[in-house]
Order: sequence, then C-alpha cells, then structure tokens
Amino acid sequence: MHELSIARRGQEVQASPIRRLVPLANRAKDQGIRVYHLNIGQPDIETPPEYFRAIYDADIKILAYGESGGQPELRAGLVPYYASFGVDVNEQEILITTGGSEAVLFCLLTCCNPGDEVLTLEPFYTNYNSFATMAGISIVPVPGSPADGFRLPPDDLLESLISSRTKAILFSNPGNPTGVVYTRSELERLGRLAVKNGLFILADEVYREFIYDGSVFTSILSIDGLAGHAVICDSISKRFSACGARIGNIVTHNLSVLEAALKFGMARLCPPALEQIGAVAALKVPEAYYARVREEYQLRRDVIYQGILAIPGAQTYLPKGAFYSIAVLPVEDTNDFAAWMLSDFSYEGATVMVAPADGFYATPGAGRNEIRLAYVLNRQDLNKAMLILQKGLCAYNSR
Amino acid sequence: MHELSIARRGQEVQASPIRRLVPLANRAKDQGIRVYHLNIGQPDIETPPEYFRAIYDADIKILAYGESGGQPELRAGLVPYYASFGVDVNEQEILITTGGSEAVLFCLLTCCNPGDEVLTLEPFYTNYNSFATMAGISIVPVPGSPADGFRLPPDDLLESLISSRTKAILFSNPGNPTGVVYTRSELERLGRLAVKNGLFILADEVYREFIYDGSVFTSILSIDGLAGHAVICDSISKRFSACGARIGNIVTHNLSVLEAALKFGMARLCPPALEQIGAVAALKVPEAYYARVREEYQLRRDVIYQGILAIPGAQTYLPKGAFYSIAVLPVEDTNDFAAWMLSDFSYEGATVMVAPADGFYATPGAGRNEIRLAYVLNRQDLNKAMLILQKGLCAYNSR
Repeated sequence: MHELSIARRGQEVQASPIRRLVPLANRAKDQGIRVYHLNIGQPDIETPPEYFRAIYDADIKILAYGESGGQPELRAGLVPYYASFGVDVNEQEILITTGGSEAVLFCLLTCCNPGDEVLTLEPFYTNYNSFATMAGISIVPVPGSPADGFRLPPDDLLESLISSRTKAILFSNPGNPTGVVYTRSELERLGRLAVKNGLFILADEVYREFIYDGSVFTSILSIDGLAGHAVICDSISKRFSACGARIGNIVTHNLSVLEAALKFGMARLCPPALEQIGAVAALKVPEAYYARVREEYQLRRDVIYQGILAIPGAQTYLPKGAFYSIAVLPVEDTNDFAAWMLSDFSYEGATVMVAPADGFYATPGAGRNEIRLAYVLNRQDLNKAMLILQKGLCAYNSR
Repeated sequence: MHELSIARRGQEVQASPIRRLVPLANRAKDQGIRVYHLNIGQPDIETPPEYFRAIYDADIKILAYGESGGQPELRAGLVPYYASFGVDVNEQEILITTGGSEAVLFCLLTCCNPGDEVLTLEPFYTNYNSFATMAGISIVPVPGSPADGFRLPPDDLLESLISSRTKAILFSNPGNPTGVVYTRSELERLGRLAVKNGLFILADEVYREFIYDGSVFTSILSIDGLAGHAVICDSISKRFSACGARIGNIVTHNLSVLEAALKFGMARLCPPALEQIGAVAALKVPEAYYARVREEYQLRRDVIYQGILAIPGAQTYLPKGAFYSIAVLPVEDTNDFAAWMLSDFSYEGATVMVAPADGFYATPGAGRNEIRLAYVLNRQDLNKAMLILQKGLCAYNSR
C-alpha cells in the first residue's frame, strides 16, 4: 500500500518521553515482572467521592453542548478558590479549558505568532515542546541547575536570552519536573523582566497544593503590577487526583487574552460536560482534604530523597513542591539505563520505570545523566522501588 | 491597567458565527421573549440511557489518566460499528480524540505544514477556519451552489484550485451546513483527484446516521485505492446526541498519520475518562435507535423545507442528510437580519435565532443572503419557528 507522507511537523513532534518506554514496560509485565511506575504523575490518591456523586445526582438526560468558556457554575466556583490564596479575580476572568494542556496551548496560540519565541525555565514540563510545535513557536530554554535545586537563574542570564521575537515566559510553579517552589522575590524578578521587555508571564500552577516543609506558595497573580502580563494555566488533575477529567482553566486580568482564548475555545465547542459537574462539587472539599494529601506527599518525598542519597554517586536536592524530583545518576545516558531496567533487570520479580530527564530539556545534550522521579506511589512501594533502583544501578554499572 | 497586546493570530481567529449572536439572544430572553434556536446543531433527542448507566456502574474511585490514543475497549468497540457500513478497519487504525474537533485539528497538524493549503468544499463547517488558524494553514474554498443542492463541483474547477502547497481536501459528508450527501461516484472522483495530486482526503463523517429518503451513505474509507490517502474524522456527538461528551476519533489505514496524531495526543495526555466509558456502552444501542432518530429528523427536515418554500422570495433545495439546510433569503445581509430578529422583532412573544451563512464561506462576500438552519427542535416548535421566520422577513422587508 502506498502511504502518502505526512508533514514535517507531524514527523517532528515529539513522542512523550514519559510514555515512550511504555512498550518495554508492557513487555516486562507480560513476563510477570511487577513494574513500579515512577515515570508518570498519576496519583494513587482517591478522587473526592463528591466528584462522582455530583455526576450521578445530576441525572442528565441529554448530554448537550455547554458554553465554550465553560459552565458558569464552575467559573463561579473557582472565584473563592483563587481568593483563598490571595488571587482576587471574578468569573469573567476565568475560562474553563479541556485540561491544563489546552490552557497552555490556547495561551501560546493567543500570545504568540508563528515564529515567535517563548523563554522556558529548564528543565520544563516536556509537553510544552509539543504545544510549541502545534503553535509553530520556538522554546528558548533558560538553563537551571540541580546544584542549587533549580532556583531562578540570574537576571543577566534571563535577559541575554530575550530577542525581538520573545513574547512570553512560560514556567511551572511548583516546578515539574524539578519540584522547585519559586519565592515571591523570584516571581517579582520575573515580573520586572516581563514588564521591562513587554512579555507575557504564563504560570502553570497546577501543583500549588503540593508544598512541603511549611514553604509558602506564591501565585503569579498575587504579584503587583502584572495585571496586563500574568496568566495562570491551571488544572484540577493533580489537586483532586482527577487526571482523567480533562478540566483546566486560564485565569488572567488581561481580558484580551481571555477573549482570544475563548475564540479558540469556540472552535472546539466546549469542555467535557459531566466532568465539569464533578469539578464544581470537588471544589467544595474542605481544606482538610488538601492538608491530608499534602502530608502524605511530603512523607513520600522524603522516601525518594533519602533513597537517592543512599545511591552511591547519585545527587539530588530537597524539592519543596509538586511530586517530582530530578536525580543525577552515575550513568552516561539515562535513556539507555531506563530501557535496560525494563528489558534486562528485575529484583525479586520487580523493576522500576523512570523518565529519562533529557526529554525535559531543550538544550542539546542536557539532562542526559538525569531522571525525573514522580512520587505517586504509597510509601511501602516507593521504598521498594528505591531499593530496586539502587540495585539496578549497581548491576548496570557492573555489566 | 496596561494590557499587553495579544498576537495577530489571537486577534484574527474567528468568533463562531453560530455563537456570536448569543448576547443578543440572551437579551431577548431577559425581556421574556422565547427564542427558537435554529442556529446550533444541539439535538433535543435524549442520549441513550446506557451511556449514563455505564458511567454510574463503573463506580470509579480514581479518575486516572487513560491511554493517549483512547481506551482499548472504545477502540475495539468501534471496529464492528465501522464494519456495519462497509469500512473494514482494526483497532490499531483508530485513535480516540477529544471530540471531532480535535480529530480535525490533529489531522491538519499531521498532514500539513504551516503555510500549506487545504481545499474545502464550500460552504463548510465554520470551525474549520479556526482549526486552520491554529495549524497555520490556508483554507482554499471550492465554491458550490444552492441551485444544485451543493453537489460536488466539476473536476476542472477543483483541479484549478490545487497548487504546489495543497496537501489535503477537507469536507463533511453528509454536509454541514448544506445537508448534501455525496454519491459514491462523487467520492470516487475526489479520490482520483487526491491520488493524482498526492493529497490527503479528510472526510468529516459525523452525520452519517442522518440520511433521508432512502439515500445511501458512502464512507470515504469504502472507496477502493485510497488506503494511503483517506482519513475519517468522526464523533459520537450527533450519533448519540452526546455533544457534551467530547469524544471523537480518527480512522485511517495510513499508520503514519495515526502515529503522528498520537504524538499530538500524548501532549494532551488523554481524552476524557468517564465519557469514554459512556461511549463504549452507547455503541451497543440497537440499530432501531438510529432508525427512530432518522425517521424523526426526516420529518423535521420536511417542516423546514416546506417552511422555506412558503416564504416569498426564499430559495432552498431538499437536503438528503445531516440536520442542516442552507436557505437563500430575500435580504441583502443575513447578519443584519439575524441580529434584527433577536433585537427588534417578536411574534406572539417569540422569535427565531438563525446562523448567518457567510461564516460558512471563505470566498469574500459569498453567502451574504443565506442562512443555515439546524432542525433540531420538535416539529411543533419547528412549525412555529418557520412561521415566525416568515413573519419576521415580511416585517424586516417592510421597515
């Protein structure tokens, strides 16, 4: 059969570095090996039961189109949520999207023309690459370092990367894959840079509930003087352990951004209907829900942190947020190591799947000896996984 | 407050011509006027109860990420469905998308590079414009005519519009907004053109269950010799009256297309989880469900058709599929007329909202005296709506 060739863009868009080793993992499972997944941020915490209850109780008969900007009840329900951490917005400043993914895509489409550049604090959430491909823009990475836990790089480095084509700074806070939590003064520094250079600041804040050791989360929208510049990309996926819902949103005081994003939204008609009903209900969970989840994740974080420190030659830092960490391993290429762990190694009938970190870097060659660990398993499993990782590294380096 | 300016692309993307008069409709409703909606294809038919039942019964505890290409049960469930109308595909040739909208977007991103052109049979589903803006491509309209019910234009016209940048032909069958149902010989003609010129054929077939007067639906994938060229964009929205589900899919024998579309899909992680569970169940409704819906819509089509013929100076044709029709009205600008109907007219406390058809044309000035009518109301309401339309036109032209 003659297959017509697809476009260059279709060939070049990346396969998810978090998901591309899945076939090897499946083969291991087929052989009866248990695979501990540290590669993907799929929490094992239960979604609040209110989410499902609300959908059952709604007893919908016709699953009709909703509003392109999302259901008014959901937009209204988010207003007090944002107020709870110092972000004063009204429901006209909120647009519901199909996941945080669509929020980022719509923001890039709205703020940038094809050929424009976006500064991204590196390492960064790997799917930004695909959204950039879709929007026809270039990602310009701002290199960070595991040595200082990926703090915001100095102004002169940031400024040296800004060109006449730069339109926005895109970053996640708390950071995926780094776990960094930016301080108010770091965000103010980013803000001054954005104002000075006429840039949008796109802050992906989907992990804001996951903050440890009493650290304080600061939203970009709580920084003064950024009303025309700052945009939050958000999602209920992590907050409510509802990754399959595909409900996210954009928040900004810049109504031109929302108006354009809404026009992109009109094209896809509306976000999923039932899932929005669930999201409205989930927003009413008491603060205790977040506190319990936060406590659990902090303990898990400690397991991962101690586990890495126990590996000879590995390096890491204490992440303060999200549920990821970057670890430097004593290997040359973590792609090879991660694949080897799935295809050639097991310990007591089990192995570990990690995400090679180079997929989170745009700088060529960067991150080759790093992995991203997602700590979304219970502590017992995490402890086992870290032991297996240690044993695996030892075996890998003794081949 | 200084608002940073958004990008040209964000300014230029169209507001949905189906939805842009909504504020006027809301104002009319606020004044106590009943508005009959003929502007949007939101069916009033109930979603199969199996859809909701399956979601309730699933009793999910953690709403986790699913597979980026969709849940295996849904992909498998679609195989016998396609076989039922002569399309022989396996589940590896099916990719689940977040609505038919995403199917079209992913196909354009996969098959075209920025700057490429896509031939589109005009008038066409207006949101193709927005997907084209998002993908950075140009729509090249192939003008059709209400005089022949928008049959496929002759080869020489089609061929004269193909350039070195043309990568695909995009069309809906049955047609939205025209209701045209393309014959096998028309599709073969398109197929020969695609093969001769190395083009993809992207067939949006979301209305295939809505076929009247014993007409026969022919899928592009049942045409011989197009395996490497033909792609179906599909959705459960209309078939199961489940527009809010946002579940669609791509079907093609060209695995390079699917592989690239899957990579775009990995970026947005997965389609909505609960809605896929519902879709699996809905696929099992008996053929009688479709037959009953089809019968009802054919009767509605007749109401619209007779209603237009009864309007002095209006012209139309008998549409054979979908639930739309184009009517030529005795006015200069249907945008002005449609707005006037909402803001200045009512008859016995009610008015009608129609979609000005110019938004379904890319040719400048085309369709200015046309409207698109969606016949998704019950017959009693449709009869009233057509009477109001007639009265309104008379009053409008007597101002």
